[in-house]
Amino acid sequence: MSRVLAREMGRHAGTEVTLQGWVHNIRKIGAVAFLVLRDRSGQAQVVLEGDMLAALPTLESVVAVSGWVKPDARAPGGAELRARQLSVISPAHRLPPFELNRPELTAGPEVVLDHRVLGLRHPKLHATLTVQSELIRGFREFLRGEGFTEVHTPKIVATGTEGGSELFPVQYFEQQAYLAQSPQFYKQMLVGAGYERVYEVGAVYRAEQHNTSRHLNEYVSLDVEMGFISGEEEIMALEERMLAQMFAGVAETCEAELALHGAKVPEVRDVPRVPLAEAQAILERRFGKLLPPGDLDPESERLLCQYVAESGRPGLVFITRWPRFVRPMYAQPTADAPELTASFDLLMNGLEVTTGGQRMHDPTVLEASIRSRGLDPEGFAFYLEVFWHGMPPHGGFAIGAERLTARLLGLGNVREASAFPRDRTRLVP
Amino acid sequence: MSRVLAREMGRHAGTEVTLQGWVHNIRKIGAVAFLVLRDRSGQAQVVLEGDMLAALPTLESVVAVSGWVKPDARAPGGAELRARQLSVISPAHRLPPFELNRPELTAGPEVVLDHRVLGLRHPKLHATLTVQSELIRGFREFLRGEGFTEVHTPKIVATGTEGGSELFPVQYFEQQAYLAQSPQFYKQMLVGAGYERVYEVGAVYRAEQHNTSRHLNEYVSLDVEMGFISGEEEIMALEERMLAQMFAGVAETCEAELALHGAKVPEVRDVPRVPLAEAQAILERRFGKLLPPGDLDPESERLLCQYVAESGRPGLVFITRWPRFVRPMYAQPTADAPELTASFDLLMNGLEVTTGGQRMHDPTVLEASIRSRGLDPEGFAFYLEVFWHGMPPHGGFAIGAERLTARLLGLGNVREASAFPRDRTRLVP
Repeated sequence: MSRVLAREMGRHAGTEVTLQGWVHNIRKIGAVAFLVLRDRSGQAQVVLEGDMLAALPTLESVVAVSGWVKPDARAPGGAELRARQLSVISPAHRLPPFELNRPELTAGPEVVLDHRVLGLRHPKLHATLTVQSELIRGFREFLRGEGFTEVHTPKIVATGTEGGSELFPVQYFEQQAYLAQSPQFYKQMLVGAGYERVYEVGAVYRAEQHNTSRHLNEYVSLDVEMGFISGEEEIMALEERMLAQMFAGVAETCEAELALHGAKVPEVRDVPRVPLAEAQAILERRFGKLLPPGDLDPESERLLCQYVAESGRPGLVFITRWPRFVRPMYAQPTADAPELTASFDLLMNGLEVTTGGQRMHDPTVLEASIRSRGLDPEGFAFYLEVFWHGMPPHGGFAIGAERLTARLLGLGNVREASAFPRDRTRLVP
Repeated sequence: MSRVLAREMGRHAGTEVTLQGWVHNIRKIGAVAFLVLRDRSGQAQVVLEGDMLAALPTLESVVAVSGWVKPDARAPGGAELRARQLSVISPAHRLPPFELNRPELTAGPEVVLDHRVLGLRHPKLHATLTVQSELIRGFREFLRGEGFTEVHTPKIVATGTEGGSELFPVQYFEQQAYLAQSPQFYKQMLVGAGYERVYEVGAVYRAEQHNTSRHLNEYVSLDVEMGFISGEEEIMALEERMLAQMFAGVAETCEAELALHGAKVPEVRDVPRVPLAEAQAILERRFGKLLPPGDLDPESERLLCQYVAESGRPGLVFITRWPRFVRPMYAQPTADAPELTASFDLLMNGLEVTTGGQRMHDPTVLEASIRSRGLDPEGFAFYLEVFWHGMPPHGGFAIGAERLTARLLGLGNVREASAFPRDRTRLVP
């Protein structure tokens, strides 16, 4: 008898089926026991009677149960399995370090991360990575529809994107190398290689010393770069349409997962574009908050999203026109104010989830910008070459996949959105 | 006037359009010049006359050309653009180091890699990464249809999958870490975390000293792992169906790219399963080649594919039943011969492109196997934990994306299938 998934059991009412999965819960009530079986699709209620009660499996054991599917309005999915045969495929030899069959996992966050694999069996934690997987699928699907090519760029690099800080060193045979902080140079280079529109889903590495709820030292970056643009507005408009489609996709395919988190996907439309100077003025006027030029701190990001949300909009806002001195050397100046850049951050529900903008494409201008940072263009020769050979105007953005997932689901810590987070001290599991 | 792609120009006959792209070629013939414009979609012929001949753009400059689309059977795509206006968006300041507008790139392989970005402008090289992108898309699409979840596992790890050799060391703050050789442990752990079926497209790292045409030190691994299997045959059958769908997808969407390489996608059906001992017997009988137990060298892989192809089949063969001593410690022994494993390699057109098999799921057996290799299970505690808490029978495989692409397109060197290859000495571009 071939296997049926828990979610599909209701469709097989009146027939005999086999379920396979983990023992999520068992309650013995008199002469029957109710076993909740959990598989990748969800949960099913199984009724055990007679001999089967003599040796009930331990919680979290992997079992196969065959029996008749009986409609029952009280059971999840509107049906239960009357077991005829139960066999243990792989027993759980030990008790889990926390209770997986309660609505919330109540152990402390470090305990949950120490036992990350078992924690991911909890339906709510499990749902997080499912949602992330669907978000990333939506990302790719949208971009492919727009003529983008998926690329894979090296994570072992000879030099940092920004010139050297916060890099993890790698011993590459006899050479000193680093882990890539970003595919920034490579995605630009591939635009110039004639792909014009590229995206990458890949790991990036930041050797940041601080351990906060918003930082990971290794995370998944959703990177986009696009040539032949007229300006940064085209990039923001693309991201807006993209997020709208990604969120709509998740709303459609992850209804149960969103419900477990009590999350609703925001409608992404007409996201306000607020120049940084204006954002700072709002913070001062409305919240009495004074900031140094070019700066937005975490509290400001929260307040600005709150400000936008007060007008009944989703908590999404593009902060534009950042000064050059807080942006990387490749950021394109705005046409009307050369001390500002044609760049943006996207804040979502209180946190920056995207940085993007137009990049310089004139090699002379770019080299001058590199020099103005006290860097030597020679060190960037591999990046600069394509600019001397015909580089279209271009720009792009990057989204932190874990941050986006965390903001969408209202998670308190970005680690919860990473399968196996790497932070200041954590290398295992 | 909004931009039209070169490939689409024929559809706009009789109207005025704008093309944007790179100057692929210019030939001046009397009072006219024929400019071939190249964009991400392909090439278009542009006819320049009058004043426009006074200052022709340099090769590889980025230009915009507006004009009327005139049907012309002699032009590629059946139409040419009669230019009314030509403007240089971004000039090429230097001559490319090789000729991009010949059917083949004739420079030496190291020169081409030194100038990789410019090389990728050549239509044939360009096509390689387009095909790879479509192969990977097919991989994901097939697996999602089979209920698999995409995952992202860490590439900074505390320990190697196989116990320590060929690892790149990373300085992770105060700790010694390594780059992951494979997501093997993590994908198994995520099967046990209840996802049951997972896949990952991610970088893996091998600090192999040898520089051959078949090795990359950083490459893209297409990893699959699946729980609740009955044996390794189920995994091979899955891979067979998967490759068939991936190749069919590429045949459909990459017709022009395949044609540039003179490549035809093989039909994947009824791929022979040949036990290693039998494969060695064939090599001895048919080719007079003697090999040590458990070994297949590169020449043997070529000969075995040739042997299969001689019977009119595509050059694909699963080599099964590898001895335990040449497989990792987690490889599941076969039911009938405990010194052999339920594992396989897939050879394609002369090269191993996949390793896979069933894994041990009993924690006692797995720990004993780890000890039998002289390793301490304590060092694998983060991996082993889930096995004590109910681990289903499972197995999977990994495909090297660059190798698969290279085999499909008949490339002589796997580097050609990597956007920015990392080999024994190459860290740039």
